[in-house]
Amino acid sequence: FMEAEMEKEDELLNQSLQSRTLAMEKVRASRQHLILVASLLDRIPNLAGLARTCEVFKASTLAIADASILRDKQFQLISVTAEKWLPIIEVPVSSVKHFLDKKKREGFSILGLEQTANSIPLDRYIFPKKTVLVLGREKEGIPVDIIHMLDACIEIPQFGVVRSLNVHVSGAIAVWEYTRQQRSQ
Amino acid sequence: FMEAEMEKEDELLNQSLQSRTLAMEKVRASRQHLILVASLLDRIPNLAGLARTCEVFKASTLAIADASILRDKQFQLISVTAEKWLPIIEVPVSSVKHFLDKKKREGFSILGLEQTANSIPLDRYIFPKKTVLVLGREKEGIPVDIIHMLDACIEIPQFGVVRSLNVHVSGAIAVWEYTRQQRSQ
Repeated sequence: FMEAEMEKEDELLNQSLQSRTLAMEKVRASRQHLILVASLLDRIPNLAGLARTCEVFKASTLAIADASILRDKQFQLISVTAEKWLPIIEVPVSSVKHFLDKKKREGFSILGLEQTANSIPLDRYIFPKKTVLVLGREKEGIPVDIIHMLDACIEIPQFGVVRSLNVHVSGAIAVWEYTRQQRSQ
Repeated sequence: FMEAEMEKEDELLNQSLQSRTLAMEKVRASRQHLILVASLLDRIPNLAGLARTCEVFKASTLAIADASILRDKQFQLISVTAEKWLPIIEVPVSSVKHFLDKKKREGFSILGLEQTANSIPLDRYIFPKKTVLVLGREKEGIPVDIIHMLDACIEIPQFGVVRSLNVHVSGAIAVWEYTRQQRSQ
């Protein structure tokens, strides 16, 4: 009798594990094929803000340099629990190139959001479905060795005397534009 | 002799004043016909961020409830001098409705950025050239009496579990979308 009882419990446990795995896969499948690389960013408000924005637009992954900031009080205050739903992975600055190489082999286009002489204006660029978007460091932008790895550089057209958007805001505008294009297809 | 000298100086002063006025008019004419109303917002980082974003996209005017925040240290740190170039006007909360009425009579469409049952998704909406965009208070959004005055409510489609973008970020995305549409024409 005991044995039959245990077998029944095992079966129930298995079923619930399976349905949980399925649910998780469904959640993952419903996300967009957009990976945001924020490993170069330093400021916690920008990282927390990006986590929130990525969750709102269901990016597939946010890469950050140091996962310990997820336990930071300021981060949690700004991210409003986004980190509980959005897959966040740790890609230290020293591993960014390796990570981009790997994603390139998986069929992703590797893009940078940066003002360079060859950058394409955001409203002239058609995003591939599988996109990795690299954001630049707050002051210095994307370092040259990473710029060289990119399939394309995109820039947000800027018109004023003050020529610099905050990195969270530019990232959010780019994620919106990617989302808008995917929705229009 | 003295008189002739003074007349000459007067003329030079007049000329320089005239060229300054022309330059100012040119600067104003090159701005977009977009007025952002941030009078309902409370948080200085959001207001300063919006000033920076409005200057980058050359909105014509940013309306705020209390102009004294322009002298606030935190404001200036975030706005990075945007307030020196962007026309910022004071529209206290109690005057918002009067201000919107006036702009409506001047031919502007009065829009709100707010999630309501009748909101139009941002990527389904064609912005009129002369647009006033009202942003909602950080927590409570746009009060009902102002909602009733609007020609349309627009919302940014949101997909995640966390369903709220920061108000500076939503405002920036809407300003970008307006700009993108104007550029494509």
